[in-house]
Formats: sequence, structure tokens, C-alpha cells
Amino acid sequence: MATTTETDAMRRAIALSARALGATSPNPVVGCVILDAAGEVAGEGWHRKAGGPHAEVHALRAAGDRARGGTALVTLEPCNHTGRTGPCAQALIEAGVARVVYAVADPSPQASGGAQTLRAAGVDTAGGLLAAEAEAVNTAWLTSVRLGRPHVRWKYAATLDGRIAAADGSSRWISSPQSRADVHRLRARCDAVVVGSGTLLADDPHLAVRGVEDAVQPLRVVVDTRARVTAGARVLDDAAPTLVAVGKDADTAHLPGVDVVRLPYGPDGTGLDVTALLAELHGRGVRSVLLEGGPTLAGAFVAAGAVDAVTGYLAPALLGAGPAALAGGGISTIAQALRLDVTDVARLGPDLRVTAVPTAQES
Amino acid sequence: MATTTETDAMRRAIALSARALGATSPNPVVGCVILDAAGEVAGEGWHRKAGGPHAEVHALRAAGDRARGGTALVTLEPCNHTGRTGPCAQALIEAGVARVVYAVADPSPQASGGAQTLRAAGVDTAGGLLAAEAEAVNTAWLTSVRLGRPHVRWKYAATLDGRIAAADGSSRWISSPQSRADVHRLRARCDAVVVGSGTLLADDPHLAVRGVEDAVQPLRVVVDTRARVTAGARVLDDAAPTLVAVGKDADTAHLPGVDVVRLPYGPDGTGLDVTALLAELHGRGVRSVLLEGGPTLAGAFVAAGAVDAVTGYLAPALLGAGPAALAGGGISTIAQALRLDVTDVARLGPDLRVTAVPTAQES
Repeated sequence: MATTTETDAMRRAIALSARALGATSPNPVVGCVILDAAGEVAGEGWHRKAGGPHAEVHALRAAGDRARGGTALVTLEPCNHTGRTGPCAQALIEAGVARVVYAVADPSPQASGGAQTLRAAGVDTAGGLLAAEAEAVNTAWLTSVRLGRPHVRWKYAATLDGRIAAADGSSRWISSPQSRADVHRLRARCDAVVVGSGTLLADDPHLAVRGVEDAVQPLRVVVDTRARVTAGARVLDDAAPTLVAVGKDADTAHLPGVDVVRLPYGPDGTGLDVTALLAELHGRGVRSVLLEGGPTLAGAFVAAGAVDAVTGYLAPALLGAGPAALAGGGISTIAQALRLDVTDVARLGPDLRVTAVPTAQES
Repeated sequence: MATTTETDAMRRAIALSARALGATSPNPVVGCVILDAAGEVAGEGWHRKAGGPHAEVHALRAAGDRARGGTALVTLEPCNHTGRTGPCAQALIEAGVARVVYAVADPSPQASGGAQTLRAAGVDTAGGLLAAEAEAVNTAWLTSVRLGRPHVRWKYAATLDGRIAAADGSSRWISSPQSRADVHRLRARCDAVVVGSGTLLADDPHLAVRGVEDAVQPLRVVVDTRARVTAGARVLDDAAPTLVAVGKDADTAHLPGVDVVRLPYGPDGTGLDVTALLAELHGRGVRSVLLEGGPTLAGAFVAAGAVDAVTGYLAPALLGAGPAALAGGGISTIAQALRLDVTDVARLGPDLRVTAVPTAQES
């Protein structure tokens, strides 16, 4: 077998980690590749779900005795705490690994310190290899640790002139089948999918993931201040769990057996408080949210400073009338515009998919 | 010198033709490369401006005696008529060219027949080489011949949520300096730039080309039904010619010395008739129009079926309020959406430039 460079092995570990996006919350996604003393791949693994073995444990099991004197490439600093599984730093030491290279330091207070433990045990330990690539895959979890709330990706589908429906409200279909299939992949990588009651009443969406192999269904969240959802709505079927968030005084008598949470009103006095909603979701282990609209709910998230990424599906079509993709957000003049950096542009059938993140604020 | 293939020579001829975009109307852009009998480049040329020598004449002059027994590659079928210059088919015959290859047949009734004339004189003549590439460069002129009106490209700059200004009307700047420089290149390649009076009164735009070497200034056209433009407007300076199109009963006493045309009202009874405007411009030799807005005027062009291409500068920013890029157009339901095909996507600084053309209608 050919030897593998540490960089190639880390790239492989990052790819492995990405396989579990949407399945590990509240844990991060992590991948690990073990090279033996001769530099050949001896084992690999990734964290598949919360409560299951960590990536290092999978990889050490696969490597067996070949881990001794070898090098472990891990996308995240090995954990130092005993949660539902033992600390990975200790497992690597016990397996006799001579060197550990990780991409991103663990920012969570309860799990960090793994590198220090490894060094104290005489293991050659380095961090930062392909850090940007590894962070990009783990961005939702890292954001949630940093902000103490779930990472929010706003997804919309609009025409080139920014409309999400025609003047008569018709919207099926603005975007292409390829774009709609891609939305299912986005959903599968998130822990929760959030829609407002306007979208719910207009479209009766199902919101579960279809067509993605081995997908863990996200929590479907309906932001429904006045509890207007009906018991027969498709979103309340048993294809995936569903949470209905209502105002604190909403009448939910027509929703027996439905998981309902009561939240305070937001600053505008009509919609629900976005920060409270995200806190509720965070408390339920949700680390990544796909916000699917509609425009008013998206505006409330923008106003709350709670949009961390944007995925826009732009259909090459013009309508000239109909609702815009985003309504509200508290921006009244050009200097207040929420500026973004485009991180990716892709063609999906006839459509463009534009991915962007808010421009870092200068401090 | 190395010999050149006919395909490479045609590619070069197409590139040469593109240099004169915006400078030749009412003529097409044309490029020509002459290979001598040994297959080496003997001369090249392009049509630089209406009234000047045609591409073939430039190339024949450069080739001199080496044209005899050689091959001429021309992007458009050589003309057969005596206009302000003699027929090119005759010039090629007299120069002793043995073979003529053209990309696109000349669709204009008064100029076509060149290929027939060449063949009758014993010149080996073929058409269609790199026809698609040559048509793409000449699309404005070809459209104008086919439709009997100028080709119209609608240009807009908007945020990802389709806004061209914030709620307070501020719009400087939504798009990046790179995008704004690109607009000047678009203007330089067109014969006329068209804006509505709303944009004129809001922004007092200048509309002349800046920063493009050797640019021929386009005709600046203000669609100003009620003659609201003031004598001091920047668009009325002497940097470029300007035409003010007004309603048939507008009071233009405040515009002495300004080139004013009176046009009938359009189907909505308020704006000017787009078809009449385009006929007026066509009569003035305009073959390509850059429609720069605003939204209402663009809507009138969409409603009139008079948008042949779209260039959208999409700034990665969100506003959540403010005017949309396109208003009106007579589309009320999703099935009536004006569907486009994206022909190009480019990054211009932080922005995306999306180029698209209306999807060919199935007949």
C-alpha cells in the first residue's frame, strides 16, 4: 500500500465527517483517519450519531494494533471529557498513537483540553491542519457553541426579480426539480426546518426529507403565533417529529397530541420572539436550523440578527409582481443593508444556487 | 510563418468583429481574415464604423497580392449591394480569392446574395463555420433585422432579494465598483441607453460611457411622458447625444434646443408606447438598446414582448423593503412567468452578473 500524506489523510477525515451532517446533534460532526507507523492508512471512522462512539474510537477499532506508533488525523481536537462515551484523548494515548494532528480546536468548555492531555502524555500534538475546510463542514455546530443558539440558514427560491410567487399567489413551481431535490439535501443536513404559518396555510408543505438516503428526519417547526394550523395539516403527520410554536395566549384546543410550545411575542408585538424560539430549539438539542420562510418570518430572523447563512435558489424567470423573498428586517436605508459574501454559486438545472454568509463586521 | 486552420482564422475574425460592437450601427459587426494560398495569414480587418470600409476591404488591402489564390474567412456573408461602399463579393472576386468561408448568412434582403455571386464567379464558397459563435457577437444586429426593431437588453442591479433601492429610496451603491464599470462596457457596446423619468428624477444619471477606451457614445434616451426632465439634468449635457421621448401633448417649452420626439401612449394609457419608441429609434439607426430602467419602464418593455436579453447585477445583500427590480409586465400567474435561459454567470467583485435570454417559445 502507498503511504498517505497527513494533508491527504485530513482531507479524507473531513469528507468522512461530512457524511453525518444532520445526524449528530447536539454533537459536532467529526472524522478521523489513523496512519500506521509506516504512514499507511490503518483505520478510519466518523461520528455517526449522538450517543454513539466518537470518530477516534471507530478509527482506532479499525486500526487495531497498527495504531501503535502511528498518527491520528482528526477534524476536531479530541475530547477530554467523559460524556456518554469516554474521553478520546485517553483512548488515543492508550492505543499508543505517537502523533495527533487535529484541524480545529474544540471551543466547547466541557470538552476542550484534549490537546493538553495528549501533550502531557508525551504524544506529539499539532492543530490547525486544513482548519478552514474542517470549519466549513462543522460551521453549524461551531456557530451554535459560539453563540449559544442554533446556526440558522435561510433558504429561499425566487425569480431573478426576487419574487417567490406570482401576483395571484401561485408559486408551483418557480424553481427547478433539481433545486427542489437540493432543498431535501439541505434539510437532511439540518436538525430542524422552520416555516411560518403564512407559508403553511398557503402551501400546506410537508417539510420532511424525501429522496435522501439514510437521512435523519429534521424536526419540523411551525411558527404559528395564533395557532392557525389545522389538525389535518400535512406537517403534522408522522413522517417526522413536529413542533408547533404558538403565542403564549393562543388557543390550541384543536391540536390534541401535538407538541406545542408557548413563546413570548417579539419586538413587533405580533410575531413570536425569534431569540426565544432559538433558545427553545437549542434546549431540545437543535444545533442547525433551515429557515424556509416565508418572507415575514425571514424578516423577523434578519431583524433579530439570526441569519448565519443564506441559500438562494434563483430561477431564471421574471414575474414583475408578487411577494418578495424577504419582507421586513428593519432595514430602512442602503447603509443598513445586510451585506453578504458569496461563498458558492452553482447551476442546478436552469437555476442558480447562491450560497452566502453575512460579511464579518469590522469591530 | 505557421499556417492557420480555417477554424482558427474564423475565431480570430469573430474576435476582430467584436471590437466594433456599438460603433457600426445600422450595420452589423463583421471581421475578416485572409489566408494566402499557402494557408498563412495575409491580412485581417474589421468593419469599424458605418460608412467606412467593410471588413473584407480592410483585410484585402492588408493582404495585397497575397490574397490571390487564397481563402477569406468572414463572419457574415459578404454583401452583394452597393451602399456607401462597393459590394464585397465583387471585391473578393477581383482580388482573385479562391475560396470564401463565412459564418452566418446575411438575412437582410438588400445585402444578401453575396454567396451566390461568389459561386457564379467560380469562387469556392461555404457558410456556417462557427456560426453560433459569430451569431452570438452579432445578436443585436441579427435580432434587429429579424424583428424590424432594435435588440433590447434589460440591465438591472438588485440585491439578492430583488430590491433596487432601500425603503427610503437610497440606492448608492447597491452594486460593486466592478459591476458599475461593467455597465459602462455594456453601454459602449449599445447604440442607445434608455431610462424612464422616474429614474431620471430620482438619480439624475449621466448615462454616458466613462472609462472605456475609444467608446462611441450611445444615444441617451429619456422616456419622459410628461416632460418632467429639467433643462439642467445631467443627461442633457453635451457628453453624448440625447433624445427625450414625451407624450404627444406634453409641454416641452422648458426644453429649448433639446431633441424631443412625441410618441403615442401605450396600452396602459399612461406610459409611452414601447413599440412606437423602438420604431422611432430604429428609424434613427439604433440597432441595440440598453434598457437601464426603472422598474415601471422595464415592466412596459416586458409587457410589449420587447426584452431580448437580460443582464442582472446581483449584489450579495438583503434589504427586505424597497422597490423591486421589475414592476408590471402584465404577468398575473406563475404559468405566465417570462422564463429565461441563463447564458452566463460571472463574479464581478462581490457581485454576480447573470446574463439570460428569453426561453425559445415552443410553437
